Order: sequence, then C-alpha cells, then structure tokens
Amino acid sequence: LSPGAMARARDHQDRLTKPRGALGALEDVSVRLAGLAGDCPPPLPAPAALAIFAADHGVHAQGVTPWPQEVTAQMVANFLAGGAVANCFAAQVGASVTVVDVGVKTPLPEDPALVSEKVAPGTADMTRGPAMTPEQARAALEAGIRVAAELVRRGARCLVTGDMGIANTTASAALICAFTGRPAEEVTGRGTGVDDETHARKIEVVSRALALHGLTTAPRAVPGSPAGVERALATLAAVGGLEHAAIAGFVLGAAARRVPVILDGVIAGAAALVAAGLSPDALGACVAGHRSPEPGHGAALAHLGLRPLVDLELRLGEGTGGLLAHPLVCAAVRVLHEVATFDSAGVADKN
Amino acid sequence: LSPGAMARARDHQDRLTKPRGALGALEDVSVRLAGLAGDCPPPLPAPAALAIFAADHGVHAQGVTPWPQEVTAQMVANFLAGGAVANCFAAQVGASVTVVDVGVKTPLPEDPALVSEKVAPGTADMTRGPAMTPEQARAALEAGIRVAAELVRRGARCLVTGDMGIANTTASAALICAFTGRPAEEVTGRGTGVDDETHARKIEVVSRALALHGLTTAPRAVPGSPAGVERALATLAAVGGLEHAAIAGFVLGAAARRVPVILDGVIAGAAALVAAGLSPDALGACVAGHRSPEPGHGAALAHLGLRPLVDLELRLGEGTGGLLAHPLVCAAVRVLHEVATFDSAGVADKN
Repeated sequence: LSPGAMARARDHQDRLTKPRGALGALEDVSVRLAGLAGDCPPPLPAPAALAIFAADHGVHAQGVTPWPQEVTAQMVANFLAGGAVANCFAAQVGASVTVVDVGVKTPLPEDPALVSEKVAPGTADMTRGPAMTPEQARAALEAGIRVAAELVRRGARCLVTGDMGIANTTASAALICAFTGRPAEEVTGRGTGVDDETHARKIEVVSRALALHGLTTAPRAVPGSPAGVERALATLAAVGGLEHAAIAGFVLGAAARRVPVILDGVIAGAAALVAAGLSPDALGACVAGHRSPEPGHGAALAHLGLRPLVDLELRLGEGTGGLLAHPLVCAAVRVLHEVATFDSAGVADKN
Repeated sequence: LSPGAMARARDHQDRLTKPRGALGALEDVSVRLAGLAGDCPPPLPAPAALAIFAADHGVHAQGVTPWPQEVTAQMVANFLAGGAVANCFAAQVGASVTVVDVGVKTPLPEDPALVSEKVAPGTADMTRGPAMTPEQARAALEAGIRVAAELVRRGARCLVTGDMGIANTTASAALICAFTGRPAEEVTGRGTGVDDETHARKIEVVSRALALHGLTTAPRAVPGSPAGVERALATLAAVGGLEHAAIAGFVLGAAARRVPVILDGVIAGAAALVAAGLSPDALGACVAGHRSPEPGHGAALAHLGLRPLVDLELRLGEGTGGLLAHPLVCAAVRVLHEVATFDSAGVADKN
C-alpha cells in the first residue's frame, strides 16, 4: 500500500463537506483502496466480477453435513442457469458471474459458460491423510491466479470471491485452527445449520485432522518467509479444499494487479489466511465483505485485521455476502471523486 | 401488514435453493415488505427517492454545537449543486434527491429545484418554551405527508429519509428521551463530534428542556389512541424540530401508500417515534437503514423493534445511511422474484 496515496486520501476526506470521520468505516476503505492503487482518488471499483470456485471434499465421508455431495454439482448447474441467490445479488449490483470447476466430484455436463480448471474430482479425506498432494494444491492456486488475471483483463475493476462445496465449512474450520492456533471447538460452526450431533462430530473430525497433520498450534514461521510459505502450503494441502486453494490464488492474482478483492464469508476468510501466509502484502487488496455467523469467520477476520462491511447473519456462501458489500465499497471510493470540499462549496467549517 | 402475504413469503424463502434461513436479516426484510404490499413477491422497491428535510433549531443558542447555524443553508445549496455525500450515495444507488426547506433560518436563494414548505424560520429555543406551536408542528407533518405522496406519484417505489439541521441531534435526543423515558445522559451523543464540554452542556440542555415541558417520563397513553396522539403531538411541538415533524409525516405518507421507507440515522429514529405515537401501524412500512453511533439511535431502534441493516459508524445524516441500505433492501426482495426453488432447479434438499 502506498503511504503517500493513503495520506492524500485521509487529507482529502478531511476537507470534504461533512464532519471529519463522519463516514466511519467507509473512510478507511477509501484510504485503503487509494493505497492499493497508489493514487488518490483511486479508480472506481466497478464493474465487479464474481468467481464461484466449486469443489468437493473427501471429509464429506465423515458425516459432517446432512447435504448429499451431489448438491455441489447441482448448484453449479443452478449458477450456470442463473437461478441461485448469487446470480440474483450479482444482477442487483451489476457484477458478472464466472463459475469455475476446480474439483467437483460429480461429472458435470459440458457447458461453454463453465470454466474447467478441474484439478481432481474432490479432495481426499483429511482425517486419513492429506486432502491434496502438494502438486494439486499448487495447481488449484495457479488456477485461481489465472481466473483473477483473466477477469481483470476483461475489464473487472473489483473481484469478489465465491465458493460452492458441500462440507467446505469443515475444511475452513481446520484451516482457521491451523493458522490461528485456536481450538476446533471455538472455530467450528454449524455451517448450513447442522444439528447438535453433527456439530459435535464436525468438531471431533476437525480436531482429529489437525492432530494427524501436526497442526494443533499456530505457525511460528513468519508469513511470507520461506518457512512461512512452506507451512502455508503444507497446511493448505493437509486440510484445505481445492476451492480454498483457488480462492487464495484469486486473492494473490488480484493483489498482483492492484485490484481490490472483496472476500465473502468463512471459506474466503480461511483462504485469505492461506494467501496471507504466502504473501502478507496481498492483504492490502482485501476488503472483508461481510461477517458470517460461523465462529471461525470472526476468528479469521480478527487474525487478518479486517473489518467486515455487512453483518446480517448471512450463511449461504457463493459470494453472496461479498456481492452485497460491493455498492458500499463503490460508495466509499466515489466520495473521493465527487463530493465537494468546504472551500469549493462555500460551506463554513466548524468553529 | 398482511399475515397471509408474510406467510407466503416465509414459505417461499424455505423452498429456494439455499439452506433455510441462510439470508439472515434479509429474509425478514423480504417478509415484511410482502406484508406491506399484501402480495408475494412484493414489488421491487426501486427506484428510490431521497427527501432531505432541512430546518434550523432555536436551541442552537444554547451552544450545543461548534457549527454555525448558517451551515444548514450552505448545505442546502450544496445538495442542490450535487456536491454533498448524500448526492454521491444517491447516484451510487440510483435514487433521486429532493431537497425540502421546512424551516431554514437563513434566507435561501430562489431555486426551482428546492421544494419550499417553509413553516417558520427555524424553531424556538426549547429550553425557554415550546420549540413549535401546535399549528407549526401540524403544518410540518403535513408537508412531509405531501412530499411522500408526490414522490410516490412520480414513480418512487421506496422512500428514504434525509435531514439537514445544525443542532438537530440535540432535538433528537430530547424526543427520544420523551418517548422512551430514558435519561438525557444515556441518550445524548456527540453528534458531529463535539468536545467533552459541549457534550456535557448538550446533556444539561436536553434535561432542562424535558423538565420544562414535563417530559421526564415515558408516555403512559397507548400509541395511536387519542391520548397517545395528543401526547405525541405535544412532545413533537415542545422539543422537536420542523424536520422531525416533516420526516414523521413522510413516514406516515409512505405507510399510507404501502411504500417502504428506509429510515436514516438518529434524526429519523426520533421522527419515527413520533410517527409510531401517531399511528403505530406506520412502523410496518419502516426499514431501519443503518445504526448511527449516537447512543440515542440505538435506544430509538430498540424501542421501535427495528434492526438496522448497515452498521459502519456513519454519523453524517442527510440520508446517507438510508441510501446505503437501499441495495440491500432491493436484494432482499429480488430473491423472492428470481431465485430458483429446489424443485425447479433439480437441487436435492438436505437429508
């Protein structure tokens, strides 16, 4: 982030016709995006492009969710047909929707609108071994980087993360535990609304996986250092999902192009921990779209130092919370472009 | 609110391709708007129209703010020139902006874009007598009703409240105390950011006004009953502002036409207490756009039973927080129009 552009943005906010600081958290967003662009005002973060990364999870076999695994593929079809909530919210905010298969288990029908980056037909069960090989994790990361690059090339000026993968809140909880050092019972939530018995099993499954892979304490290595990068990749491969890997790459790809990326909920939060482990600077491109009621999401955001913009108990994923934040991010930046100063408008400042 | 339409909206939400309840507070908004319209799905709440009601306050003489009173008129000019944050946010969400003079003290230049409903050149000082006569309060209420009717007639399908009036957080605090029975020190905030000394004076001024007018306890009369209406009108006239009266009328006008009205911050919250005192049913049309950091706003929302959609420490007024909520309200309703059901999309429900 450019300190000069950030200072100019703060100064400019203080000259606008409003009490100082009156736009609260939105002033911080505008300053951050000025820093990312190295310019004040930064470019308007529009149009936005949502990428929904879909994949399946071997840990589904452990009974962590009441939803059948086929729903991942069925929801991919629903996204492509325009029938999901993510499509509806994208239409509301003028965002495009790109659906990416990074690892759906069920065979998908050919569809020219589906981006196929399938690395494997789902991950392996993290309670029996690593979820991914190092090569698979790396391939999914690179797929995410490629998708970000392509969307920016086609004109997107803001990216939004989306995900679909039955059982992916379990993998998210494991990633968040491994990066923050918090225990599974603090971080593992009810996802789409599981019952007490399934919730207890989910916690036990996450604990077992962390123990198996030696991930019960927070990493000591400095994020971004060679040891930090190695630990982040090993953690991702051990307990992550293919969509987590792809979203981490998507964040890195956005940051490399200095385009803001709005993080959706707990899956994106887990993936952002991976991205920050690989390259802490990438966090500068991240805006936390919303706060999910999943306890792990709060833990991830606190660890990343990000403040969510929308907090409405959304627990759907797909990018829905990130999309709803897009008009807020635009509004924050637009203020720096359009609002008059005390001088220009002839308005008296306070005594 | 129509119970039948609300039940149909809830049922429909449960059939959509998402886990039940996964859209959190937005599902409640969609159900409420179905009840308001008496139809499911309810009409999309767009386009939106913001009305900014501007007025001055006699209590300014008590030194409750560092801003000169002339700023009210200067900001009216800024709204008309398109240079304020409210204009910027309105452009972001596609809302029209109507500026209404209900009681600005400083003479305003002629401008065909300014709606003149001036009832008086500001209120009187509420620490020395009633801020308004009963006739003035009633005239300002009627002005608000007229503006709502006119905006709906011109095609608005969602109204947003806005305000401008130096010292109006002081009048808001007094209104909120009088309707909720809470003490001035709990409700009176720092408005645009006053220092400790001014804040202490503001609390003392509010307490003094409440004592003078016999408003130190919550009303016993049932809202909407003849005695409740009388008490609401008397409270409004004693300690309210002309823009509070107009916004209360605006809410009543929206409710009468079954058009949703998004409340902005603490001024709108105080005005909504007046509207609810006059006609409790009017609350069915209200959506709380955001939560301001003013302590009185939280008290007003709790009393009204409304949950704010945006919570970003905005403390600007003008309608800015209400405008930012508009895309969220649209998204909530749009889901009922566009999202596929489990059956129609061929997606399996959970086991």
